[in-house]
Amino acid sequence: MKLLVELTFIGTAYCGFQVQNNGISIQKTVQDAAEKLYGPVRLTGCSRTDSGVHARSFFCTIEGEDCTRIPPDRVPFALNVLLPRDIAVKSARFVDDSFHARYSAKGKEYRYLILNSRIRDPFLEGRVYRCPSRLDSELMNTLAQDFVGRHDFAAFMAAGSSVTDTVRTVSYARVERDNGDLVTFIVAADGFLYNMVRIMVGTLIDLSQGRLDDASLADIIASRDRERAGFTAPPEGLYLWEVFY
Amino acid sequence: MKLLVELTFIGTAYCGFQVQNNGISIQKTVQDAAEKLYGPVRLTGCSRTDSGVHARSFFCTIEGEDCTRIPPDRVPFALNVLLPRDIAVKSARFVDDSFHARYSAKGKEYRYLILNSRIRDPFLEGRVYRCPSRLDSELMNTLAQDFVGRHDFAAFMAAGSSVTDTVRTVSYARVERDNGDLVTFIVAADGFLYNMVRIMVGTLIDLSQGRLDDASLADIIASRDRERAGFTAPPEGLYLWEVFY
Repeated sequence: MKLLVELTFIGTAYCGFQVQNNGISIQKTVQDAAEKLYGPVRLTGCSRTDSGVHARSFFCTIEGEDCTRIPPDRVPFALNVLLPRDIAVKSARFVDDSFHARYSAKGKEYRYLILNSRIRDPFLEGRVYRCPSRLDSELMNTLAQDFVGRHDFAAFMAAGSSVTDTVRTVSYARVERDNGDLVTFIVAADGFLYNMVRIMVGTLIDLSQGRLDDASLADIIASRDRERAGFTAPPEGLYLWEVFY
Repeated sequence: MKLLVELTFIGTAYCGFQVQNNGISIQKTVQDAAEKLYGPVRLTGCSRTDSGVHARSFFCTIEGEDCTRIPPDRVPFALNVLLPRDIAVKSARFVDDSFHARYSAKGKEYRYLILNSRIRDPFLEGRVYRCPSRLDSELMNTLAQDFVGRHDFAAFMAAGSSVTDTVRTVSYARVERDNGDLVTFIVAADGFLYNMVRIMVGTLIDLSQGRLDDASLADIIASRDRERAGFTAPPEGLYLWEVFY
């Protein structure tokens, strides 16, 4: 038996989930809290998540000798008093040893939040990407449909990534504007490449604003060339929103 | 001519709008920024707002020799680069000298946000009051209707306040729950007493949870006795939401 916990966190202060040399990781922070309860434990996350990226829902398993001592419904309370204010445990349950936080996930939904305004909003500072020039969210939504399906997304992977299989299946992708200035890109897939959602967003913005010549999104995907896609949108707008097990 | 600016701010780091001895005020912070543009200026706010209270919309006039130099539509950009991240200018316009940020206001709407959950939410930390015990928002909404109308709200004013006329007219009051754990109290009136909204919220919670004996809200209002009303809900859930001129 392993303990599976659902986290939510503001990623601003962290170098991502995984332990790295260049900053404090979510993993280390949660591990430190868990070890105060259980003694030595091992954590496995559902995804790496980049530096500065947020999670509405992130899953990790906690393994250790003593990890089934506390009833799952009490685990959030026990851990939340030990965690900093920008990380919380939402829920917890026991899973089989065969369960893997990353490989058992059938898919994930990410959301990317854009404040489309020339005026900054203190309440959204660090939690959205602010784009001052007017976005055509309907056009972006139409364009985004080309992402749906099974494609080689090599053009949407950060240069230097070591991943060789760049084929992923996107189950849905859409762009929505609320009644005001908030534009949201919503995308679900069986897996994501390094910086994939952020490059998707940058490409939708660049394409919709006529900055990528006459290329269609299908052309860009087919090119498998990172140079043909748009800019990498900054991390502060990105949220891991849901993990499907 | 005076310059009227609409602010939005996260109140957490401030002692309220007005200059005080015990902390940094919104007024002083905005004045410092404005004086970099205009030289010496005088600010008048639409309301005091307590320490730690937020504003979605707050108005203040800026008066000084040079205050009409920058076109109103450029003022937000000029001031926002000079202001800290937790304060922003949303809009600006010129008004007559007879206009008074506080006395020209016909009324205001406040909102009080409650996260009704046993689990904390990092994204709402410091921006809501978290109430772990289950709230009956429909009952609270029914009770809140007794606030509507012209009443003496002496029971809903912090002890020690020097205000003598405690009669105010509430134009609407309601309690709404979203699809999840967020419960919002919305109230508009021609004016508010010191801590009035926070005591209203505490009283609705206490009454709905049976902690104020058999009293009705009408009884408590009629008593004019602060001791009969409920607790003062903490500042972090309170937002000045709209000012009606």
